[in-house]
Amino acid sequence: KMTYRIGLLPGDGIGKDVITEARKVVETAASSFGFSVEWREFPYGAEHYLNTGEILPDEALEEMQQCCALLQGAIGDPRVPPGVLERGILLKTRFYFDQYVNLRPALTYPNVPTPLKRGEGIDIVVVRENTEDLYVGLGFLSNEEIEATVDMKRPSYTLKGALSLKVDPSMKFAAQLALATEMGVRRITRYACNLARRRKASEIVLATKSNAVKELYGLWEEIAKEETSKEGISLKLVNVDALCYQLARDPSGYGVILCPNLFGDIVSDLLAGLTGGLGLSPSANIGDGLSMFEPVHGSAPDIAGTGRANPLAAILSASLMLEHLTQVEASEAVKNAVLEYLRAFPRQRHPMELGGEATTSEVGDSVASII
Amino acid sequence: KMTYRIGLLPGDGIGKDVITEARKVVETAASSFGFSVEWREFPYGAEHYLNTGEILPDEALEEMQQCCALLQGAIGDPRVPPGVLERGILLKTRFYFDQYVNLRPALTYPNVPTPLKRGEGIDIVVVRENTEDLYVGLGFLSNEEIEATVDMKRPSYTLKGALSLKVDPSMKFAAQLALATEMGVRRITRYACNLARRRKASEIVLATKSNAVKELYGLWEEIAKEETSKEGISLKLVNVDALCYQLARDPSGYGVILCPNLFGDIVSDLLAGLTGGLGLSPSANIGDGLSMFEPVHGSAPDIAGTGRANPLAAILSASLMLEHLTQVEASEAVKNAVLEYLRAFPRQRHPMELGGEATTSEVGDSVASII
Ligand SMILES: CC(C)[C@H](C(=O)O)[C@@H](O)C(=O)O
Ligand SMILES: CC(C)[C@H](C(=O)O)[C@@H](O)C(=O)O
Repeated sequence: KMTYRIGLLPGDGIGKDVITEARKVVETAASSFGFSVEWREFPYGAEHYLNTGEILPDEALEEMQQCCALLQGAIGDPRVPPGVLERGILLKTRFYFDQYVNLRPALTYPNVPTPLKRGEGIDIVVVRENTEDLYVGLGFLSNEEIEATVDMKRPSYTLKGALSLKVDPSMKFAAQLALATEMGVRRITRYACNLARRRKASEIVLATKSNAVKELYGLWEEIAKEETSKEGISLKLVNVDALCYQLARDPSGYGVILCPNLFGDIVSDLLAGLTGGLGLSPSANIGDGLSMFEPVHGSAPDIAGTGRANPLAAILSASLMLEHLTQVEASEAVKNAVLEYLRAFPRQRHPMELGGEATTSEVGDSVASII
Repeated sequence: KMTYRIGLLPGDGIGKDVITEARKVVETAASSFGFSVEWREFPYGAEHYLNTGEILPDEALEEMQQCCALLQGAIGDPRVPPGVLERGILLKTRFYFDQYVNLRPALTYPNVPTPLKRGEGIDIVVVRENTEDLYVGLGFLSNEEIEATVDMKRPSYTLKGALSLKVDPSMKFAAQLALATEMGVRRITRYACNLARRRKASEIVLATKSNAVKELYGLWEEIAKEETSKEGISLKLVNVDALCYQLARDPSGYGVILCPNLFGDIVSDLLAGLTGGLGLSPSANIGDGLSMFEPVHGSAPDIAGTGRANPLAAILSASLMLEHLTQVEASEAVKNAVLEYLRAFPRQRHPMELGGEATTSEVGDSVASII
């Protein structure tokens, strides 16, 4: 019997609440499909940071290496300045394990209203590059003059360099480097092509903006073209502004959308908004090493522990995790259980966020009961 | 009697069609409100480029200086590689005249459907910074090693510097510099505050992303906070991903949204999508020198000259131009004429794009008849 060691990072606020339910559902799936799970919980998040001053130490990352996957709740707390935990935990994990794929499915769910008049039948996956772009963290802030050496070590490449900038008249200014590498674009494009093939689609859309930002997104277009044509998939270039416009007006024609990091952040949140909302938006951070799965929503500290949190995004993230662990049947059973629950259970038994009356743990129980 | 010299850049495709109507409407407004207009037409666009190899020469920009404002149609043509005319004409003009405000109103119009179930009553203005961010054009593309000197002269500051980057293992990579200056953020924030005051609003929203891109958007937050508190306006920080999410789900609470350049490009197109579409989306590029007004839509070469183009966005852009020229009554008369036309004229007499049967010039006539 296969045993998976899963790292759990419940994190802050409702993160703990929803992870409890995801765990419950994974355990049910495990006993139904004949595998077992060993949980290893990590304490990182606002509480741990406020108590110890520690954000996410390198030793913890090394220990995580012994897990098959990570399942994360949510991080963030009003007592911690914005960005500290996001960069220190979330982005650090993505970069450390070179999780270059950020997968964000956006789906219309049964009995879950969308803000669109014609929002039915949306079934889009955003394939977001997760390690480059403006996210590389090469930012510089100065009065008058920036003199910096750039030294970035990533599992897949090393960047070294120097930057010297001067603005006249003297005033504060900031510069931030956005990066794209051939390897970075190639591997994510290949991933998107494989996904398109699995979905029986022959085309992917690339969110770009080379008409204004020539070199960065020009390289994206060039490499994505090469790679898709090798893979026999056609590539449609759409400027990110036009893409958001079209998604708002008629998302029906879209399937796999490949995005550079920042555009992926924006487009996937927009799509979550246009479908069932963050309460139903899972995500996967996938690399060749350890991968991480997390609901897209925040930690909502105001409702933490009250039973009002909707655990479905965490449960759907667990489904993505099971798929990644090649427990494909278990993954589908979890996803189908969520769909069936929303389709067949009376409104009253739906999460409060969706107009029902069920507590966080009752929602978990309902989904588990279907598996 | 005041005479305004207006530079016209009809450009490509339907640009010519819609500018003809905007001109018609401005002339009607001029005779009603006691001023006159002298038109100076410029030929730049795809046709001119393909015939002469010239995109937009500096002498033309100098000649434009003699105008009070520029009114532009649309540029772009499938025979010209994407980006050439956009950067060579549109972005060049914005940068040359230091048009640091890009104003993009998004409004629900009477009898124009929106894709949202609750899209009524949207009245938002995106105030987009228009001269900095990833748009500064400092991009570098190379195999293995980038060695570049950076030298950028703008009306408001000079940036000098050097960049040296090396990626190992050797592969093609691209780097692009995004920039924010204290002066740049200060002046656009001040503009947004003034606009908020004119709209009797006490708050503006800033689209940011400092949780991931610390220095660049951190400077934005810092300076925008300083400037709004000086101006007695409160500032609400919203991450751009969350902003797009919320605009999709419920745009009703929003008024003035201040955006760095790239986010402004995306958010304003999204809002155009969530309201009446590009056919009703005007824009203004405003600076302390010459300002430029243009519909946001493209050149739609497939319907050029057929009478199918909707000139309302160009007419609304002309209204923004009249406001800028301090012909406030004329500006309001034009805007109100568009509203009245959509409200009171039968559907049949609306633009074909909006389900009517009127040609481009019939739409212009209808609007002019109301003024
Ligand atoms: C054509 C392009 C360079 C331009 C921009 O990105 O600013 C356009 O999208 C706009 O918004 O005016
Ligand atoms: C919290 C933040 C740094 C993060 C991102 O920008 O990637 C989040 O928005 C997400 O999309 O996972």
